[in-house]
Amino acid sequence: MFKINENYQKLPGSYLFSGIAKKVSAFTQANPDREVIRLGIGDVTQPLVPTVIEAMHRAVDEMGKAETFHGYAPDLGYEFLRNAIAANDYAARGCNIAPDEIFVSDGAKSDSANIQEIFGADNKIAVCDPVYPVYVDSNVMSGRTGVYNTETETWSDVIYMPCTMENGFVPEFPKETPDMIYLCLPNNPTGTTITKAQLQEWVDYANKVGAVIIYDGAYEAYISEEDVAHSIYECQGARTCAIELKSFSKNAGFTGVRLGYAVVPKELKCGEVSLHGMWARRHGTKFNGAPYIVQRAGEATYSPQGKAELKEQVAYYMKNASVIKEGLKDAGYTVFGGVNAPYIWLKTPEQMTSWEFFDYLLEQANVVGTPGSGFGPSGEGYFRLTAFGSYENTLTAIERIKKL
Amino acid sequence: MFKINENYQKLPGSYLFSGIAKKVSAFTQANPDREVIRLGIGDVTQPLVPTVIEAMHRAVDEMGKAETFHGYAPDLGYEFLRNAIAANDYAARGCNIAPDEIFVSDGAKSDSANIQEIFGADNKIAVCDPVYPVYVDSNVMSGRTGVYNTETETWSDVIYMPCTMENGFVPEFPKETPDMIYLCLPNNPTGTTITKAQLQEWVDYANKVGAVIIYDGAYEAYISEEDVAHSIYECQGARTCAIELKSFSKNAGFTGVRLGYAVVPKELKCGEVSLHGMWARRHGTKFNGAPYIVQRAGEATYSPQGKAELKEQVAYYMKNASVIKEGLKDAGYTVFGGVNAPYIWLKTPEQMTSWEFFDYLLEQANVVGTPGSGFGPSGEGYFRLTAFGSYENTLTAIERIKKL
Repeated sequence: MFKINENYQKLPGSYLFSGIAKKVSAFTQANPDREVIRLGIGDVTQPLVPTVIEAMHRAVDEMGKAETFHGYAPDLGYEFLRNAIAANDYAARGCNIAPDEIFVSDGAKSDSANIQEIFGADNKIAVCDPVYPVYVDSNVMSGRTGVYNTETETWSDVIYMPCTMENGFVPEFPKETPDMIYLCLPNNPTGTTITKAQLQEWVDYANKVGAVIIYDGAYEAYISEEDVAHSIYECQGARTCAIELKSFSKNAGFTGVRLGYAVVPKELKCGEVSLHGMWARRHGTKFNGAPYIVQRAGEATYSPQGKAELKEQVAYYMKNASVIKEGLKDAGYTVFGGVNAPYIWLKTPEQMTSWEFFDYLLEQANVVGTPGSGFGPSGEGYFRLTAFGSYENTLTAIERIKKL
Repeated sequence: MFKINENYQKLPGSYLFSGIAKKVSAFTQANPDREVIRLGIGDVTQPLVPTVIEAMHRAVDEMGKAETFHGYAPDLGYEFLRNAIAANDYAARGCNIAPDEIFVSDGAKSDSANIQEIFGADNKIAVCDPVYPVYVDSNVMSGRTGVYNTETETWSDVIYMPCTMENGFVPEFPKETPDMIYLCLPNNPTGTTITKAQLQEWVDYANKVGAVIIYDGAYEAYISEEDVAHSIYECQGARTCAIELKSFSKNAGFTGVRLGYAVVPKELKCGEVSLHGMWARRHGTKFNGAPYIVQRAGEATYSPQGKAELKEQVAYYMKNASVIKEGLKDAGYTVFGGVNAPYIWLKTPEQMTSWEFFDYLLEQANVVGTPGSGFGPSGEGYFRLTAFGSYENTLTAIERIKKL
């Protein structure tokens, strides 16, 4: 008789955002007259910019003619896209990343969930707390996290690095030495980040203890401060300790288009074994490339016109961030983030738990946010709002919250 | 110090098709004047049909307007697509599959590689030999296959079910009881298949021994014979033992578009645990949906006009299959397949090994095929040609082979 992967049974509840979607769906069915505003899941609302739309139409036309039809994509992604990434996201920032160190994928969620596969089962992971739940969940599924404590809502074999008001949301080096360190900077969900100098300390630490950093830079486009690194490869020594994951979802609105990439430098090795070769093998065996049309769309984001249009789109969302942040401040909330990231992280009022505040906001203001505790135990008592709504909805939502 | 997944070190050589691509690339660089015809990798060459192209243009336009923009797709896929699949691929054939048992993905390669994750590490897998290499390779990566014997080119913990000339390419029930049985029917690479009655025996066997069948139906559209099942759910009892994987790559030319789906019936359980729930959890945690544009393209393949156009396209490739099969027969080769599948499987002449014949064909006829031994030890002495080239190239390739 076949046996299941018992690690799945250890997962408490459903995936955070699937759970929220069900709760919101139940509310809207019970209250069909209420106009619910979603500032919960980090999904964008603005349409793809014209330059991307044009590139996609052209690519669709190519797919309709035998002379220009494209079948299976190259394993690592098309050269036109890898070259554009290497030039714009790395060379232009003084980072030494070759096109063949870039692996094009269907998004940073897949990459951040799959990257753990190339590591041994006995590695110990460290995560910021709170953080994007995929890092821990994917490690639970492969049995790397030990036993779940329902009281503390922590895993026995996961090193948590609390990022709270008390330490200014800056993770500290853990007491126990980790093997794999997940850093999401600017951070999801807190919307905060660290300086380049602080990131350099993490790179030095990882090289010293022999840990690998899995650096999720999905929100890089929202960085507005000068002393914040746009890539971990801006730090000295990152090529021997860091994998960087990037997404087109937030900078270009590709949440429903699906495109991302992972950078695995060739110097990143365990003994003689190159992680670059391992990831190439995984990519070649378990994935078959991002769609041609989508890769052309990605390329278009790097054209001068595409860049200009996307800069405007990021500014649009950051104006929302400002509306949320200032509005909540006016209403007496304690708020963080929203400067280098499209997320606002707030302290729940009156000692409410994160889920109590979720229900309160949904029922009283018909606004959907994300409970901080869904991102880790240190997120308890916090709440996330995203700047990815429309400007009009964001204004309405904040007006409603102000009136509570 | 971090540790790697040591299972990757066990994998012999590179992924089959990556290896072939490198070899062909070296040949073309050394012989720039030769016109190489590729009948190796199962990649299509005909453009997407007009109905699909129109659907994609419409979807691209939707993505360019705020009112019709689509962000993250629902976890399982859009209802419009799941409904079309359930109606056309199942209900129309008398199979009872609900839309919420269908999980839309970025292709059957990903699904066939990832599906093993929800099973325990101590399950024993059985595979047809020869077969699509992803089944074994993905199980090697997760440590389910034991030790590799370089002499026999087999894994100690894999049950091989030889499919050769001698048994008419029909797999026999193995002596040792398997937990997970991979069946790819019509088969890649042999192009042969089994009757519905024979498939029913496999379903009965799996239910009896408590095994799960992972049924890869990627080539279903090419079935021309009456007594061959188009879905494993045509067999009685399949809902308690079978997962079906389907692809849009071969029936609709989506190799560069990326779309597939997995069916996990709700009755498929291990004790009280539903595999449907487990796959839903994996999908929700490690994947973020196929692109909206691609799902609309998939929906278009089920429209009356789309179906008519695709029927023509399948006929085009099957005409190639006939050209290859008859041409090789005329030239004295022993050939199989090409009736219910777009693959021709031939015995190599004069006791050549599969790779010897690969080199011979590449160098002498400048035709690329796939060595049978790349699909498993029982593929040694065989060779695969695909019908996915253009008609003109297929004719030329066969003329060249005839002249050898």
